[in-house]
Amino acid sequence: MSKESALIRAAEKETGRIEAFSDGVFAVAITLLAFNLQVPKLGDAATPGQLALALARQWPEYLGFVTSFFTVLIMWVNHHGVFRLVQKTNARLLFVNGYLLMMTAAVPFSTSLVTQYLQSSAAKAACAAYGGVFVLISLGYSALWHVVTRDRTLMKAGVSETTIERISRSWRWGPPVYVAATVGAFVSPYVTIAICTILWVHWSIVAKEF
Amino acid sequence: MSKESALIRAAEKETGRIEAFSDGVFAVAITLLAFNLQVPKLGDAATPGQLALALARQWPEYLGFVTSFFTVLIMWVNHHGVFRLVQKTNARLLFVNGYLLMMTAAVPFSTSLVTQYLQSSAAKAACAAYGGVFVLISLGYSALWHVVTRDRTLMKAGVSETTIERISRSWRWGPPVYVAATVGAFVSPYVTIAICTILWVHWSIVAKEF
Amino acid sequence: MSKESALIRAAEKETGRIEAFSDGVFAVAITLLAFNLQVPKLGDAATPGQLALALARQWPEYLGFVTSFFTVLIMWVNHHGVFRLVQKTNARLLFVNGYLLMMTAAVPFSTSLVTQYLQSSAAKAACAAYGGVFVLISLGYSALWHVVTRDRTLMKAGVSETTIERISRSWRWGPPVYVAATVGAFVSPYVTIAICTILWVHWSIVAKEF
Amino acid sequence: MSKESALIRAAEKETGRIEAFSDGVFAVAITLLAFNLQVPKLGDAATPGQLALALARQWPEYLGFVTSFFTVLIMWVNHHGVFRLVQKTNARLLFVNGYLLMMTAAVPFSTSLVTQYLQSSAAKAACAAYGGVFVLISLGYSALWHVVTRDRTLMKAGVSETTIERISRSWRWGPPVYVAATVGAFVSPYVTIAICTILWVHWSIVAKEF
Repeated sequence: MSKESALIRAAEKETGRIEAFSDGVFAVAITLLAFNLQVPKLGDAATPGQLALALARQWPEYLGFVTSFFTVLIMWVNHHGVFRLVQKTNARLLFVNGYLLMMTAAVPFSTSLVTQYLQSSAAKAACAAYGGVFVLISLGYSALWHVVTRDRTLMKAGVSETTIERISRSWRWGPPVYVAATVGAFVSPYVTIAICTILWVHWSIVAKEF
Repeated sequence: MSKESALIRAAEKETGRIEAFSDGVFAVAITLLAFNLQVPKLGDAATPGQLALALARQWPEYLGFVTSFFTVLIMWVNHHGVFRLVQKTNARLLFVNGYLLMMTAAVPFSTSLVTQYLQSSAAKAACAAYGGVFVLISLGYSALWHVVTRDRTLMKAGVSETTIERISRSWRWGPPVYVAATVGAFVSPYVTIAICTILWVHWSIVAKEF
Repeated sequence: MSKESALIRAAEKETGRIEAFSDGVFAVAITLLAFNLQVPKLGDAATPGQLALALARQWPEYLGFVTSFFTVLIMWVNHHGVFRLVQKTNARLLFVNGYLLMMTAAVPFSTSLVTQYLQSSAAKAACAAYGGVFVLISLGYSALWHVVTRDRTLMKAGVSETTIERISRSWRWGPPVYVAATVGAFVSPYVTIAICTILWVHWSIVAKEF
Repeated sequence: MSKESALIRAAEKETGRIEAFSDGVFAVAITLLAFNLQVPKLGDAATPGQLALALARQWPEYLGFVTSFFTVLIMWVNHHGVFRLVQKTNARLLFVNGYLLMMTAAVPFSTSLVTQYLQSSAAKAACAAYGGVFVLISLGYSALWHVVTRDRTLMKAGVSETTIERISRSWRWGPPVYVAATVGAFVSPYVTIAICTILWVHWSIVAKEF
């Protein structure tokens, strides 16, 4: 094995483990979203129709689950998209990545807020908090991208300026859109849900490559 | 390292991370199924016989756990079977895969519905919901297979038409059988459990290769 | 890349994913053991001394956590030990492995039984169930080893008969010892705990290699 | 493939799986920290202002979450730092690593103690227990490092004495600082939080490499 390929292997291993750890956190957080789905507590005398109705009535749980699941999925895709360009890590990158993972781990909590309060009079505060967590996450992605592009030795050789420009341009939209989703909660909690839904539907229809 | 093998490595890495993430979701979801197993709440004065009886009485929990565990295991094997043939991903594949993982994450919820209502008068609705989740999952697998076979550039070179035909043929049965399991719930909730059990037992006995 | 090394890569990838999935289940199950540790529910007026005492009094939780954690760890090491010798999988191996993972996922449940009933009059039944789960797991390992040794094409070339003999010999002890731990519960629940503790302490002191 | 590179592959695979398993435990434990974040239980008649206030009042939950998240993240980085130097494992290393993972899995529990008791009169005992868990973890890291440096055949060839010395020196501080955090709880529970916070902030600002 040549010295060079040994170096490549070592470098790959380095980002490999940070990716594996991040994948683990994303996978646990996204699966735990399903814990917001709660079995209705009806007595043993409930009819099938009553159970069906109770299941239908907890539609905010399904809405929150689907919205958060696909939003976290897009985050994971973006995370993956950045780390495909990265060949080594430094302390700053680990720290920013840690911040991102921490906020991602908090998404089941903010989702639970929405599903429990969407049909209550406090829905606006719950949806604002939900949007606020995504603002903090999108700022984290901007910081991650800043760290990676500032120190080009972190990047794999051969990543073109065009690729970097393209990502920079598309990520510019994250923070302002999620700020709109947060502020929009005070108009109606459904504005927050609508913006988040449009974002992931848009992504899954429009995106040609990733 | 030649250019070609570098390309292969890169491509492998791409599907590698989507597989690692999917494995994470499958592993978390399948392990969380055990959270439907609940410790009986007897007082400190309970005798060993009473605890043994209480444990025996919650047999629907064990039945639901085993049925769902092996069903999700087969899903994982099928997922693995598709991705062994795939060499790169696109946005559509990521989206369909995300949908599959989302529904898989919901299996502990639908299992919990069954274990909590199997001995109640609402059992039919619970089992129909349980079957319904598997219908949605099997449709997701059909969609995944459709995406992979429609754009052959996603597939590894050298995958034979025979292999593709064989998988297409065997997967054709998923949706109708799970529809039968869902509709069958209205005859008796045990029809749903029986069909799901027959499916995984059949797989583990008959399957010669995978 | 030569044809041979391509084949090796492909084979490695196959067992690689079953190992990754298994590791995921082991990692989730072993971490969830910590969920048996419960924060004492004292009022806001409790003194530090009262909290310390309440924490000390829930020693069965710590005992169950440590015993199960190291027992599952040894299982993982043994799992790892088998798969290091395996080069490809078949349906039977996947099935037996699935059974093992299912029973492993149930260990937090059986541990919770012990920690909640160890100081009650039903302790014997709880410890018998705890031991019984390990009997079922050790039988699973015997089955796994049987599947792997029966079809030698599953094994990597160059695994010596001595290695196979050594593992066969050392694994012979698992089922009878755990049966003793189960039956011993009816003498005293601490017999079960003692046997399980001796097993993992013995392993961590005596084992020279693995 | 030469014999030597085959040996390297095999050795890499060995530590690869212990790292993957450890990453899994770290990822699950760190994500489960978010389960200390609880949705306030207000009635359906609560106003947005009341929900916002209730969320603000549970700041100890956020503080505990952030402190523990970054502390576990640093542990993971250190774990990664050691295993980058390791080429093979033995039973002792597996055992010490298991102990570390077990204590890491207990961090959500000790964090929960702090968040539930920080504003109560028993806060000192909760913070002492929180610090105590980190003392046990830092002693585990010392033991891990001792195992790895005592038997140099576990280390990759070419790890310089300077690297070993540097790590030995920097890790010397872990146990005494966490003992100070534990004992400091009896002065004020905020001493514990402050020391743990300073540690992770210090790391993320000062650390140039890892």
